[in-house]
Amino acid sequence: MFLDFFRRNKKSSAQKAKERLQIILAHERVSNKAPFLEDLRKDLIKVVAKYVDIDPKEIEVSLQRDNSIEVLEINIPIK
Amino acid sequence: MFLDFFRRNKKSSAQKAKERLQIILAHERVSNKAPFLEDLRKDLIKVVAKYVDIDPKEIEVSLQRDNSIEVLEINIPIK
Repeated sequence: MFLDFFRRNKKSSAQKAKERLQIILAHERVSNKAPFLEDLRKDLIKVVAKYVDIDPKEIEVSLQRDNSIEVLEINIPIK
Repeated sequence: MFLDFFRRNKKSSAQKAKERLQIILAHERVSNKAPFLEDLRKDLIKVVAKYVDIDPKEIEVSLQRDNSIEVLEINIPIK
């Protein structure tokens, strides 16, 4: 998962290279607290948008759960 | 690098399990723009602190560069 986003870019060398940002957020829970990653995701994207020019339609998000670990992956192509 | 933070936790089973959050930020640059990951790091930690109780002294940050890819790793134990 990690860096696959960038590897994908390398394959399509015919395309114009684009700047990209990948955020991986891994959360290990001890108890079953209310989920917060969804709201955090929105806030994180807002923060990133302060620094780089983002097209919201291009953002890819995936969430995986493995026992007590939740992994949120956000892939952001930069304009 | 990825998930090592959590593996470390598993080894020291004598310690009380702690909730943890790991943020990996990978940035592939096309050009040599001014670095922004340092400022972004501060903003990201502020956002995370809205959701979970963080001790700023416990946060570990590392930055690695490999050609055009910068990887910022932020490890946050949650109180």
